[in-house]
Formats: sequence, C-alpha cells, structure tokens
Amino acid sequence: MARPDMSVNIAGKLAKVTEHWSPKTVLEVNGLEFKAVKVKGDFVWHNHPEGDELFLVVRGELTIDLKDRPSAVVRAGEMFVVPRGLYHKPYAAQECEILIMDPPGVVNTGEASSDLTADEEWF
Amino acid sequence: MARPDMSVNIAGKLAKVTEHWSPKTVLEVNGLEFKAVKVKGDFVWHNHPEGDELFLVVRGELTIDLKDRPSAVVRAGEMFVVPRGLYHKPYAAQECEILIMDPPGVVNTGEASSDLTADEEWF
Repeated sequence: MARPDMSVNIAGKLAKVTEHWSPKTVLEVNGLEFKAVKVKGDFVWHNHPEGDELFLVVRGELTIDLKDRPSAVVRAGEMFVVPRGLYHKPYAAQECEILIMDPPGVVNTGEASSDLTADEEWF
Repeated sequence: MARPDMSVNIAGKLAKVTEHWSPKTVLEVNGLEFKAVKVKGDFVWHNHPEGDELFLVVRGELTIDLKDRPSAVVRAGEMFVVPRGLYHKPYAAQECEILIMDPPGVVNTGEASSDLTADEEWF
C-alpha cells in the first residue's frame, strides 16, 4: 500500500482504473479517504455503519436506490451523500466515473459480502 | 442558516456565488463541510489548526503558496490537501472556481483576521 502525496489529478487516477466496482484510494484528508471508481451495471444492496458516504460523479450518470426513499439520479458535476447506515444500491446503465469519500476501512459492499467485495488498495 | 439536502449540483451552487473569497457551505458529510468559493487575486497567509483543508478546482487555476515548501499549482479537475496547521496563501491570476472541504467552524482566513474574513453561510 503506497500512500499518495497531497495532490491528485482526478482524470489521471480514473484513467488507471480497469475494473468496475473496485474503488482505488487516492487521497486522505481529515481521516477520510477519497476513492476513484468506475461503475457499470448493478451493485448490491448494502450499508455502511461506519459513516456517511459521499458520491461525486465525474462522468456519466449514477442511480442510487435508497431504502424507503426515492431513488437519486446523480449526474456529472453533482455530489450526493448517503447517510450513515442507510441501505443503498448504486446502478449505472452506462459506464460512469465517480469519486467516493468514506472513513478508512469501509468495505465497498458494506455488510453484504459478494463477488463484488473489493480489497482496499491505494492507487 | 438553511441546511441543504443530500444532493448538490456543483456548477449550480458556484453560479450563485457573487463575491470572491467568500465560501458558501453547500454540503455536510461525516462532520465536514464542502464550500463553494470563487477566488481571484491574492489571499492572506493563514493556517487552520482545526484540520486539513481540501481544495478541488472546478474551473481555472489556483496557486497555493506553502510555508517552507514549493508552491502548488492546482488546475481544474485536481485536488490538493493543505495539512492541518500548515501556513498557506492561495492566489489566482484569473477568476477560479473551487470547492473546499473543512471541519465545521473553520474561518476562511484562519487565525489571520482581515478584510477578507467571511462569516459562515449555507447556500
């Protein structure tokens, strides 16, 4: 695990990502981690009891289904916060590039272990 | 002080900003605040003992002079972290649109009270 420096080119990091749903940690700030992710298709329902999760869509369109709330559509240039503990399921019809921000140690699939569960990796 | 919802259109928030160096809080996530800021010209040397400060440049180019370190040039699509307590002075030759992320209650000019010191305001 190599820790990056204080500066990040977002498009440059995303260009290195080759797998869908496999977050790569690119920056630490105030004890939180920014991760570069490419997504396409359906993810699994899950939640993160450790903290809120920020989504920032860089390219494309992300739909986030939310338990007992209307789904959110998050487009390029938009941010969305999934509150701590709220069950959610991201989905992207076309490939979509995003940044997420989580507390350290958060697993992408939350409590829902699946084939999509990814190890933490700095990029 | 009106609190925004979970969703933010970054360009939409920046379009409402009319003053330079006057951060408007747009989102809270994991106890930290994102602020939309337009900057132009010189700011003051200051630091934030409360925590790291994240800069994300949306449009234009921001130079951040740093105490005892090389200056950083942060361009559109890049993020930069000024570590907690490090003296810094932002500068933009042309108008530049940025997001910053700080702990709540951080004052834009840090300990350096000046004409540029801004009150916290949600947008």
